[in-house]
Amino acid sequence: MAEKEKLTIAVLSGDLERALAAFMLAVTGATMGMEVSMFFTFWGLNIIKKNKGSLKSKGLMRKMLNFMNRGGSKRLRLSKFNMFGLGTWMMKRLMKDANMPSIDEFIAMAHEMGVKLIACTTTCGVMGLTPELETFHSEVDSLTGAAYFLGEARKSKVTLFI
Amino acid sequence: MAEKEKLTIAVLSGDLERALAAFMLAVTGATMGMEVSMFFTFWGLNIIKKNKGSLKSKGLMRKMLNFMNRGGSKRLRLSKFNMFGLGTWMMKRLMKDANMPSIDEFIAMAHEMGVKLIACTTTCGVMGLTPELETFHSEVDSLTGAAYFLGEARKSKVTLFI
Amino acid sequence: MAEKEKLTIAVLSGDLERALAAFMLAVTGATMGMEVSMFFTFWGLNIIKKNKGSLKSKGLMRKMLNFMNRGGSKRLRLSKFNMFGLGTWMMKRLMKDANMPSIDEFIAMAHEMGVKLIACTTTCGVMGLTPELETFHSEVDSLTGAAYFLGEARKSKVTLFI
Repeated sequence: MAEKEKLTIAVLSGDLERALAAFMLAVTGATMGMEVSMFFTFWGLNIIKKNKGSLKSKGLMRKMLNFMNRGGSKRLRLSKFNMFGLGTWMMKRLMKDANMPSIDEFIAMAHEMGVKLIACTTTCGVMGLTPELETFHSEVDSLTGAAYFLGEARKSKVTLFI
Repeated sequence: MAEKEKLTIAVLSGDLERALAAFMLAVTGATMGMEVSMFFTFWGLNIIKKNKGSLKSKGLMRKMLNFMNRGGSKRLRLSKFNMFGLGTWMMKRLMKDANMPSIDEFIAMAHEMGVKLIACTTTCGVMGLTPELETFHSEVDSLTGAAYFLGEARKSKVTLFI
Repeated sequence: MAEKEKLTIAVLSGDLERALAAFMLAVTGATMGMEVSMFFTFWGLNIIKKNKGSLKSKGLMRKMLNFMNRGGSKRLRLSKFNMFGLGTWMMKRLMKDANMPSIDEFIAMAHEMGVKLIACTTTCGVMGLTPELETFHSEVDSLTGAAYFLGEARKSKVTLFI
């Protein structure tokens, strides 16, 4: 049996539109029979972070950054025209009109279609997050580092850095 | 005859510098004998949108987003140091000094060199744009979705997400 | 002897987190035995620019842009939550806590591990920089254009645009 072609997506950005683009491509890739991995790093960790901002992380510095940057998929914003949330609110309305899934729906859908959701261990620390699976949505499969990402990318037909 | 090597570029960003980088690479790739496709999505749609901001799109929400986000290549700005247009104006001056084409010239040049310019159907809706060729510059070849982009990327030697 | 697999990274962004991600991947790639090139363009040129902002560039326009955009690795900021430097300062503290190298340390380390650091000639002009090796850290190997980047990318196993 032929091996499946791989699609590897690194998600560094936490902007709503980049998160949407990443999930649209991941889900489309899975539909086309590709083996898809999404690797979340830096602000991208906010996308898969649990929505209730727990402040359990240790150290004042980390607590402060964690608070400022509470994250979670419901707090993602557009990179432009956010205007105190108005632009983001409008795009979310238009997403609904266009029957586009929300980020949480995309996370569930991707997981169900076999897309691997991976959190970057190395950058958890600098984002003020505790590097353990509990920090993230239950759909997140594992925590690994840059070497794992590059190992996947080497075997991939398509690698995207978003 | 050997098939041409493919270069596929997804342009999500609408920042002036990212648009310039995308076109420089597309045009250079075409000069090197590569078969180049540019796939514009989210803010990238602004780059290839007609410069006169038509407000014909339906629905109040869409009209509002379309107005806020009038777009068109002449309205692209730098992601940083924009300072009410001053930084962008200076970079445009320096581009002229360095004989670098403007975005509109790049669009015409790319089209002439056989670069395929493609608008993403799926994200037209969430950007408040009517998904039809009339919305865009005449050089835009077609409107397609994420599956088409991934299909191209799978066959490409180089895929960039900008 | 088998040729080494290539990893080519274009760094357009000058944001601290994207610079860190680029160097982490470059250094990891080199450790894994890959042949790594980093190609700095637009704001990415700030990362490898010398830290003392010389104002020797010619022309008033260029001088002004060069001044506004003094750059250098010590002036890189986060794309979000910068808050007059507070967020950046905190992330730098957390980087130290996590034993993550600074950008300057990464530049030295990458160079020592054989990573090629390349400045884009074409965009020096529009960034107000004199396109010569003296403008940059001594670890920078060469200045070339978009054709060189694409030539490398065509031969690469993994190409990332950051």
